[in-house]
Amino acid sequence: MAVEEGYISPPPTLPSTRCSIHLGVQAGSMRRGSDVLSTSRGTVRERGRNRSWLLSSIITVNVLILGIALVSGSVFNNVKINTINLQIFLIVLLILTTAWMLYYTIYTSREDHAVLYKDSHAGPVWLRGGLVLFGLCSLIMDVFKIANYVGYLHCDSAVKIVFPVLQAVFILVQTYFLWLHAKDCVQLQRNITRCGLMLTLSTNLMLWMAAVTEESLHQTVVPPEDGNSTHSYDIRASGGYSSCNCSHSACAVLEKAYYYLYPFNIEYSLFASAMAYVMWKNVGRLIDEHNHHSLHFRLKDVLVGPAVGLVMLGAGLGTFIFYEVDVEKGDPEKRDMVLMIHYVMNTVAVTLMSVSTVAGCAIYRLDQRDHVSGKNPTRSLDVGLLIGASIGQFTICYFTIVAVVATGAEGHLNALNLAVSLLTVIQLCLQNIFIIEGLHREPFHEDMHQASVFTNPYVLQAQAHRDIHNFPGTFMETKMSPALTVHSMHVAPSAPSGSPLPQRHRLTWKRRALKEICAFLLLCNILLWIMPAFGARPQFDNTIGAEFYEFTMWAAVVNIGLPFGIFYRMHSVASLFEVFLTS
Amino acid sequence: MAVEEGYISPPPTLPSTRCSIHLGVQAGSMRRGSDVLSTSRGTVRERGRNRSWLLSSIITVNVLILGIALVSGSVFNNVKINTINLQIFLIVLLILTTAWMLYYTIYTSREDHAVLYKDSHAGPVWLRGGLVLFGLCSLIMDVFKIANYVGYLHCDSAVKIVFPVLQAVFILVQTYFLWLHAKDCVQLQRNITRCGLMLTLSTNLMLWMAAVTEESLHQTVVPPEDGNSTHSYDIRASGGYSSCNCSHSACAVLEKAYYYLYPFNIEYSLFASAMAYVMWKNVGRLIDEHNHHSLHFRLKDVLVGPAVGLVMLGAGLGTFIFYEVDVEKGDPEKRDMVLMIHYVMNTVAVTLMSVSTVAGCAIYRLDQRDHVSGKNPTRSLDVGLLIGASIGQFTICYFTIVAVVATGAEGHLNALNLAVSLLTVIQLCLQNIFIIEGLHREPFHEDMHQASVFTNPYVLQAQAHRDIHNFPGTFMETKMSPALTVHSMHVAPSAPSGSPLPQRHRLTWKRRALKEICAFLLLCNILLWIMPAFGARPQFDNTIGAEFYEFTMWAAVVNIGLPFGIFYRMHSVASLFEVFLTS
Repeated sequence: MAVEEGYISPPPTLPSTRCSIHLGVQAGSMRRGSDVLSTSRGTVRERGRNRSWLLSSIITVNVLILGIALVSGSVFNNVKINTINLQIFLIVLLILTTAWMLYYTIYTSREDHAVLYKDSHAGPVWLRGGLVLFGLCSLIMDVFKIANYVGYLHCDSAVKIVFPVLQAVFILVQTYFLWLHAKDCVQLQRNITRCGLMLTLSTNLMLWMAAVTEESLHQTVVPPEDGNSTHSYDIRASGGYSSCNCSHSACAVLEKAYYYLYPFNIEYSLFASAMAYVMWKNVGRLIDEHNHHSLHFRLKDVLVGPAVGLVMLGAGLGTFIFYEVDVEKGDPEKRDMVLMIHYVMNTVAVTLMSVSTVAGCAIYRLDQRDHVSGKNPTRSLDVGLLIGASIGQFTICYFTIVAVVATGAEGHLNALNLAVSLLTVIQLCLQNIFIIEGLHREPFHEDMHQASVFTNPYVLQAQAHRDIHNFPGTFMETKMSPALTVHSMHVAPSAPSGSPLPQRHRLTWKRRALKEICAFLLLCNILLWIMPAFGARPQFDNTIGAEFYEFTMWAAVVNIGLPFGIFYRMHSVASLFEVFLTS
Repeated sequence: MAVEEGYISPPPTLPSTRCSIHLGVQAGSMRRGSDVLSTSRGTVRERGRNRSWLLSSIITVNVLILGIALVSGSVFNNVKINTINLQIFLIVLLILTTAWMLYYTIYTSREDHAVLYKDSHAGPVWLRGGLVLFGLCSLIMDVFKIANYVGYLHCDSAVKIVFPVLQAVFILVQTYFLWLHAKDCVQLQRNITRCGLMLTLSTNLMLWMAAVTEESLHQTVVPPEDGNSTHSYDIRASGGYSSCNCSHSACAVLEKAYYYLYPFNIEYSLFASAMAYVMWKNVGRLIDEHNHHSLHFRLKDVLVGPAVGLVMLGAGLGTFIFYEVDVEKGDPEKRDMVLMIHYVMNTVAVTLMSVSTVAGCAIYRLDQRDHVSGKNPTRSLDVGLLIGASIGQFTICYFTIVAVVATGAEGHLNALNLAVSLLTVIQLCLQNIFIIEGLHREPFHEDMHQASVFTNPYVLQAQAHRDIHNFPGTFMETKMSPALTVHSMHVAPSAPSGSPLPQRHRLTWKRRALKEICAFLLLCNILLWIMPAFGARPQFDNTIGAEFYEFTMWAAVVNIGLPFGIFYRMHSVASLFEVFLTS
């Protein structure tokens, strides 16, 4: 306990580090001078910030609401004239966004000082990796679409081919753009960049909306139960093929294939939206580069968590393959059987996860640590995205609960369905609490000597100077303690920092237990990510939801909720990895 | 120009303020010292804040999503079993929220130091006045509902009577609670208070959702065009009266009456939600009491704006009364006539407003002022609510535009409808920019001598002192310049502050023009508030929306969008009044 909290409560004395004061003062006063001179520029900057913030918000609101109106018009009206209009709208958006992204890439590559700061938290590797993966699938989807529409070219609008072609170009450019620039804190041309990023966000959200709608309509028209697809093809929004035959033979296959790829495209749009939003938040931000802690990933500290997690993962993937194979066959009795296995698997996983999360929260109580102080926009955003994305899963669970309870919940299958939904709700709440609490705790510092600078009166004095001189620069976000720590290390090389202490390899049982729990939860979240991401749809295979709500309603709920659920699981994996490192 | 900016841009050279530096250092180290001492208390507080923030968010998410599932179930399912379940859920929420509000009121009245700070921006008079007004209407609605359901008591569930009774009690308690406590910045029992306020928010949003749904269903079932109400009564969600007759004769009248009061109830829930949210944001906040400027409301400075505004208001109310009277009669030809007059009136109003807003923005460019610096949560919230509420109106406009354009827009009526919608979109964008820009500008200070304090070394010293003593409450939000200004008047009484200058009564033309524009916009917004608030529904009287989208869809859009539009207009009036005062 004393060892772990050592870096917080300052030891009484320290060697005097005279030179550090001097340096601190100089740095402070220099900063101050430049600030006085640049005051008028500062207010102009703030005014500009407010204006471009407002302008970009208004653009987004207008684009999105016009888009919603067009999508609603194409779904709900009786004339069915609007699909082409919607696609023209999307094409305009795609062209504008692609042009802006190219302009930005070229502009920043030419200017030397275009990007001075990078936000190390933004665009983490899981997000960028996911983006590339889903981008690839989306590209394949577009190729299939193009090939399909070519077959209908003699009797259908050419706009339908232009759209996937442009979308493919857009995906290529955007993936390249976000891969390179996701961490940028843009300083030049902020107004244009803000508007451009909001345009990117709007375009991605519009593509997401259009894809979700099309996917839902497709499922509504060809529901899994009855196969009267010839009749329903007339109703299809993207259709109008009733009197038009495909000129080559691959059409049917292609169409089936690209509908399988829709979920990846939906996920791609969500990822890109999240990254564009983070970039927008980071425009004009000056970041203290010293924020970084070097944390080591050492797997050998933990054993039980990963082991149990791997067992769960293996068992889960096994049942998942059974599930996929047997559901494809379409035999109702077999379907109920594999659904039951699937539910049992999920119940076990979710229960174990909940129990271990409770244990983890209990350990937090025992192992009290300071919370990271100071504002951290990326962290708040992370937390917001985590809670926001979990809403998708919550929605599906509560809708299932209401449906099962209202219809009486007879039979094993319904009871299991209800149990899984209830337990998932509990698990989501607990996991959110666990992750957010974990992310807000101060990371464990292995060498506690760094902490001792807090009591050095000279350093304090220097710090005081820094405070005075820092004050006018309101934009600079400095985190108190890390900056102090780093400073002391540079100036006072005599301090035995970084020296390997004997207790370094002996984790306390609390830290070890936390790491075990994180590892276990991480693997389970991977399992719960893989199953829906690669096609498990128990929500449709179990017909209770579709029967209780109207099918359209249920398809909308599942198609909007599930991609967020998938995003949530990926985000959880990343966050749990961070908690693993810091605990 | 120079006069107005004098107090902002610092003079080029400062007298050597040796002692202030010295003080600064002291200030810093003292700050540091008190910080070290209060670290444990501070971090405990921060930890508590994060936890209760998280807990209350999770409660809200769960309540709302379960509520959405129940509402959707009661609308979309085929069994129609869920209205009672939904009402039981609402009853539980009402009881819990009422109990908490009573507890809070009693607790704070007993504790002496329960509420140390009040947020002067929170719960402005228009919001509280609106709350009471709409609360009264909601109470009347509940009385009518109770009287109506009493007639069906012999053949229907008693839950249906319990609900309006409890809702009436809830409205009484909540209006009293919010009237008294809307400005509170709660310091004691923060965790409970946060959860309680989020519960209040959830309950109000649930009531809002239930009311919107019921209103939409009611309109869907008895559409204005055809009167086959006997058939449709069977489908009604709140019904099931097909085989059940009312035991007293007033039922039909009562039911008609309380449906007229639904919009007020919807508005009441929105108002209460906004106030609960602001209170939640203010929990634990320590506010600098010196923020207040004494701004005088002097009507005699302006003439043209109010005069033109009053003419618009008179003309608008005249056409509104015509409209209401003639639409009631139901004659299609007359209806088209008054719709035309209504559209023309709106076109004129919105055009004039847009033009004057553009002029106002141009004057902002000429009359450059500093932006209010520093963070101000209430101000950000105000801006957020303004933009958020405008989305309702945007949605209706864009849906109308898409419908009119897609169907070809033939005839004067459609052309006017399109024109009104387009102009309204433009007006909303401009007005948002104008108001937000206006709210962010530094208010005009009439005596410029206060500005000179920046060069007074004693004041700097005093400022340093202030910093020391203020600091330990880390939550303290201080706005730089106003605090300085106020402070300087205390410390340096030798400065000729407050002396009536000769130019005081001669406003510059720029300031006067801004005030005229604000007054005009304010009156026009009152007009645009009155018309929908008291029953004008051109969206339904003109059948193009209902014909293009399915009626359910259109009713949902209008019933969700319009209350936000009404809220937006009221909020704009209040904000414009503030801009009027500060410009």
